[in-house]
Amino acid sequence: MYNNPLKQILHPKSLALVGAGKKPTKMGTLHALSIVKDGYPGAFYPIHPREETVFGRRAYKSVYDLPEVPDLAMLVVPVEQVLQLLDDFGKIGTKYAVIVTAGFRESGLHGQKQEDKLKEIAARYGIRFLGPNCIGFINSELPLNITVFPGTGKPGRLGMISQSGTYITQTLSYLKNKGIHFSKAISVGNEANIDIVDALEYLGQDEQTSAISLYIEGIKNGRRFIDVAQRITPYKPVLAQYVGGSGAGARAGMSHTGSMGGPEFLYEGIFKQAGVIQSFGIEDLYAQGWALATQPVLKGNRVAVITNSGGPGTAISHVCETGGLDVPRFSDELQHEIKQHVLSHASCANPVDMTFHLNDKILSRVIPEIIIKSGEVDGLILHGAMSHGFMREIYPRIKEMVGGLTLEQFLEMNAPDMSKAVELPKKYNFPLLVSSFFGREDNYTSAYRDNEIPVFDSPEKAAKAMATLFQYKKIRERKALFPAAELPARQLQVAAILDNAVRNGRRSLDEYESKQVLAAYGIPVTKEKLVLSEDEAVSAALSLGYPVVLKGCSPEIAHKTEKGLVHLSLKNESEVRQAYRAVTAVAQQIPVLVSEMVQGNRELLAGMTRFPGFGPCLMFGLGGIFAEAIRDFAFRAAPLSDTEAEEMTGDLLSARILGEYRGLPAANVAALSSIIRTLGSISLIHPEITELDINPLIISGSQPVAVDALVILSAEHD
Amino acid sequence: MYNNPLKQILHPKSLALVGAGKKPTKMGTLHALSIVKDGYPGAFYPIHPREETVFGRRAYKSVYDLPEVPDLAMLVVPVEQVLQLLDDFGKIGTKYAVIVTAGFRESGLHGQKQEDKLKEIAARYGIRFLGPNCIGFINSELPLNITVFPGTGKPGRLGMISQSGTYITQTLSYLKNKGIHFSKAISVGNEANIDIVDALEYLGQDEQTSAISLYIEGIKNGRRFIDVAQRITPYKPVLAQYVGGSGAGARAGMSHTGSMGGPEFLYEGIFKQAGVIQSFGIEDLYAQGWALATQPVLKGNRVAVITNSGGPGTAISHVCETGGLDVPRFSDELQHEIKQHVLSHASCANPVDMTFHLNDKILSRVIPEIIIKSGEVDGLILHGAMSHGFMREIYPRIKEMVGGLTLEQFLEMNAPDMSKAVELPKKYNFPLLVSSFFGREDNYTSAYRDNEIPVFDSPEKAAKAMATLFQYKKIRERKALFPAAELPARQLQVAAILDNAVRNGRRSLDEYESKQVLAAYGIPVTKEKLVLSEDEAVSAALSLGYPVVLKGCSPEIAHKTEKGLVHLSLKNESEVRQAYRAVTAVAQQIPVLVSEMVQGNRELLAGMTRFPGFGPCLMFGLGGIFAEAIRDFAFRAAPLSDTEAEEMTGDLLSARILGEYRGLPAANVAALSSIIRTLGSISLIHPEITELDINPLIISGSQPVAVDALVILSAEHD
Repeated sequence: MYNNPLKQILHPKSLALVGAGKKPTKMGTLHALSIVKDGYPGAFYPIHPREETVFGRRAYKSVYDLPEVPDLAMLVVPVEQVLQLLDDFGKIGTKYAVIVTAGFRESGLHGQKQEDKLKEIAARYGIRFLGPNCIGFINSELPLNITVFPGTGKPGRLGMISQSGTYITQTLSYLKNKGIHFSKAISVGNEANIDIVDALEYLGQDEQTSAISLYIEGIKNGRRFIDVAQRITPYKPVLAQYVGGSGAGARAGMSHTGSMGGPEFLYEGIFKQAGVIQSFGIEDLYAQGWALATQPVLKGNRVAVITNSGGPGTAISHVCETGGLDVPRFSDELQHEIKQHVLSHASCANPVDMTFHLNDKILSRVIPEIIIKSGEVDGLILHGAMSHGFMREIYPRIKEMVGGLTLEQFLEMNAPDMSKAVELPKKYNFPLLVSSFFGREDNYTSAYRDNEIPVFDSPEKAAKAMATLFQYKKIRERKALFPAAELPARQLQVAAILDNAVRNGRRSLDEYESKQVLAAYGIPVTKEKLVLSEDEAVSAALSLGYPVVLKGCSPEIAHKTEKGLVHLSLKNESEVRQAYRAVTAVAQQIPVLVSEMVQGNRELLAGMTRFPGFGPCLMFGLGGIFAEAIRDFAFRAAPLSDTEAEEMTGDLLSARILGEYRGLPAANVAALSSIIRTLGSISLIHPEITELDINPLIISGSQPVAVDALVILSAEHD
Repeated sequence: MYNNPLKQILHPKSLALVGAGKKPTKMGTLHALSIVKDGYPGAFYPIHPREETVFGRRAYKSVYDLPEVPDLAMLVVPVEQVLQLLDDFGKIGTKYAVIVTAGFRESGLHGQKQEDKLKEIAARYGIRFLGPNCIGFINSELPLNITVFPGTGKPGRLGMISQSGTYITQTLSYLKNKGIHFSKAISVGNEANIDIVDALEYLGQDEQTSAISLYIEGIKNGRRFIDVAQRITPYKPVLAQYVGGSGAGARAGMSHTGSMGGPEFLYEGIFKQAGVIQSFGIEDLYAQGWALATQPVLKGNRVAVITNSGGPGTAISHVCETGGLDVPRFSDELQHEIKQHVLSHASCANPVDMTFHLNDKILSRVIPEIIIKSGEVDGLILHGAMSHGFMREIYPRIKEMVGGLTLEQFLEMNAPDMSKAVELPKKYNFPLLVSSFFGREDNYTSAYRDNEIPVFDSPEKAAKAMATLFQYKKIRERKALFPAAELPARQLQVAAILDNAVRNGRRSLDEYESKQVLAAYGIPVTKEKLVLSEDEAVSAALSLGYPVVLKGCSPEIAHKTEKGLVHLSLKNESEVRQAYRAVTAVAQQIPVLVSEMVQGNRELLAGMTRFPGFGPCLMFGLGGIFAEAIRDFAFRAAPLSDTEAEEMTGDLLSARILGEYRGLPAANVAALSSIIRTLGSISLIHPEITELDINPLIISGSQPVAVDALVILSAEHD
């Protein structure tokens, strides 16, 4: 059953606030102001030791004086008062709280301890809470705005979850101006109790919310994030910005909400796995989120571009094509139809460039409707619809030409009826995005923004948003991710190898053992034998068949090739003997591994590393000696479904080498996916493995084979 | 001597305009409006067959009725009148013109012919002109705005050159709002006479212009662009956006100004070569251009971030680090000093996060000044300085709390003195960039914008602009590019090989000939011999020394390896004989090449292709069979100086393999650079070569050697 605490927290019938007074520069007072002035319809109880009223509402001396048990308690008090107050609310039976107060985990060790106590108190009374160190939330449906910024505005469709309070407060007038409206916006703060994943789950179920944007400095429960997001993204788009992946970024995040991030490439992979669209700035998070929240799903990748000017048309086309969209040349019939409405030198092929003119009805309604009806495209980007913006600029200069008209009269004269133009997306269930260099001073911009048609302030951004709609179309069409494959049975021989190594205080398995671990779970490895003498080496070579490879086998020796411990392509007995002597000359005491020589030009790598919050994460990438320099790899969190593993192989920049490539047969992608998936299973079954590496993983013919492998063990098991 | 026609065109003492009347919706009239109303101080002569006056200025019936020979003629007339009018102006002696009229080259074959005639007429009278199909220009210094949009605004420092008129007209109020002001802005249109490079050269010399932004759909004279830009960029930053590199983008550009672009990767390389910073959207072109135009040069990569909020601080830090900047932790002393001015739980380490509060003097002046004086950073990004933006939002909600104060009085009360805050960059010669979610409705945003301190509407953009300042710092510090090395002497044996091939109607040289061409100009190639019998092959192998390589040598056969025509690592006579027989079994009649076997793991490629407008362009990249999939390469236009060739080798994503890498010695970068440079020289000396390829170029030890090569010849020479 779906039972998310935020449902109660965002819809309280009564709300008690501690920390509001009469000074409007005090934070608590600002919170109260938003509650009272933004129209909260429930019962509001300010608690204040001395004031009789706060904003005209009767204030109560203490928690115990309240006339009823409030659904929600809100604390904006000095840090040293928080614990006692939460305890008080627990005692009277309040089950939900928002703790705004800062100075907990983010401020160091003492704060961390205080936060632990906070959790204890909450657990004792069964209280679920948001914060501490958060700015509150906005629920435009109720309405209820408990943040420091008033200005909820009209109910919208974009859900916002932020690890920074700023992004649901300081930006309110910015958003209002752009016509972007929140359904719900939640500041999660330190996430001591309710976390960002709870909030995501909540908005996933919220009917008012059509798209969700996330500002992330670090996710504590990464695996749950993926699970929750994967269930939401097939029907509701989710965008995320991640900023915790760099040195100062991580440091800032730590002191901001005490969050711990992970490397950029990990989050990039996790977002792909989760079906979450990655944004790289707060502007995109809002604007592209708004496009996704308001526009119908794009049905294909064909886009029409209509402008009154060549530059924006060219720039839009360029960005569309870079983003995987097609700006197809219109059919002759369609071009002919458009031509009836434009100047003779205008271009009608797509982009349509009407060139400079002031008949905006043609641009905003007539041509769009012709194009939409044609069925030749799936979406439309419009640049250049404007009227009042230009009129305002020109009026002071032509005052004398327009007789006695005032500015208002002049604008009124030039105020075309836009009601039909703004209906187009809904009428035809057809995505429309607009670009204009004019803001609300222009009646077109305002009309579009007031009717849930996004207007971007540059042509490139409109094109980028259309590419985002296309990205979401592909996410909706992902193959089924559920049910995930079950874990294979635990292999006892693997447990024995690991136990033995752990007992002996080893931190890693040698190559032979490592491959045994892989092979036990069905990963194809080189055929090979461990030998202790030259004669054994020769007979091993004979039974494996020439050519063979000889390697010194010891987990303690790194860079074996550089040290002369690897001998490839040995074709006969004498070469084997020579190689054996060479290896044992370098390292006397170690066993020698005789392996078949796997042929194949395509060297890949696959591996597993554990990241805090995400558990075992899988890596797949280009291998060979240049892997480090080229850094073409993909990450995912285990366990993986078949779909996810296969998507991962397609993630590489050089993915085309896995297809038929320069005379090589296509690699067996199902086998590759299975190897990656299995690395995840092994890691989940055997938690003492902290790292796993197959490098190289060679495509021999079309089959992947693990040619070298390394298993690293946890130090905890010493 | 510097003698650029735009100097005269942008500073005419008198100006005649044909095409202005009384209808304000007519383009010509709008042009006249801007001229008259934006304060042109020269003599303005409208020409109109019927009107007596235009905007109160006396109109003249024809060119021949003008009271003096105007410095500049401007034509906004139907296309069929343009030729005659230009001829008329030529006859009376006008030497400069701006032709706004469209319908020339961009509109097809007939238009192209008309444009040719236009050029002829201009040549006959020595007229230099801008256009056709341009929107004119703005010179804020004079002032003179001849575009369709009035609103020159105050004189600024950003020079703009655009292949779209929109970007110097439709954006004027957008720019004014952001506090961005043009020095000069030039729409170049079809560039039938004066082109974008002339305009670049002009603004490079213009004292009013501190930075130059270019909107480009295609450059006709690419080589001259590089030469001119290279002379400007060491002292004045140049930014460019290029949008002609995709299918629809190119089509749109073609029908827009008749321009022909080239591939994206070519322009990317050309911009690097020219020292031009590439922008990917018009917003960046303006905003980053404005940051470069107004802020002092960044002296190092250390940046301080000061905010009133954690999210923006974290996001700014993240983008700074991604862009190569450092956000260093402040010294304890500096942190201590800052701590005196902030709340106890605020973070002082860098980023400084004051957390939410309303004392903006601390944020905007006190802390910045402390940090600037510390010497610990080179630049500063500030987020969160605000007052009126917030006050306007809150006023309606606290009206009753502030007694009878009107909004204006309330704002006045909260209007701190910002004069010292906005002086900081100039006082300390220290770059300051600001981010705010409030626009001009906030007094901080307005004050910064009115004082040439850029305010970005998102934290990420401010950080990106700081990274751009850093990028320009590195461009200023480029090694000297001049004088370029002289071309080597023409090698007669190469001319003979080429002549012979051309005479025989061949389109390419074989591998042996191709390498002879390279070797004649000093490029190291494999030692090798061409043989016609098995015995010759054996004796060649003996004299070269084993191991050797045998290849069938014919320009007609592609994919030699796949066809069994390449035999590597032959260790003795019997292997050579076997290989010889194998090659001649596949291809009976062809000569066989016996080469030394070059050992080396690092395979690169180098080549030359000609692009229209750019001449021979050089390519350098990662080679081997995965080159196609990885696509890690760099482009430049020949000829190259040593510096440029060396920069090119550093351009690869995988450039670190050229250093000491996994036991391999550092590659000889000087030798690599010399090879690339020489490919350029060969291409310039022998224009019949249309393509040149060295693939692979193997690093043997540390020395590059051309192991296979191909010379393609022009079809024109048949």
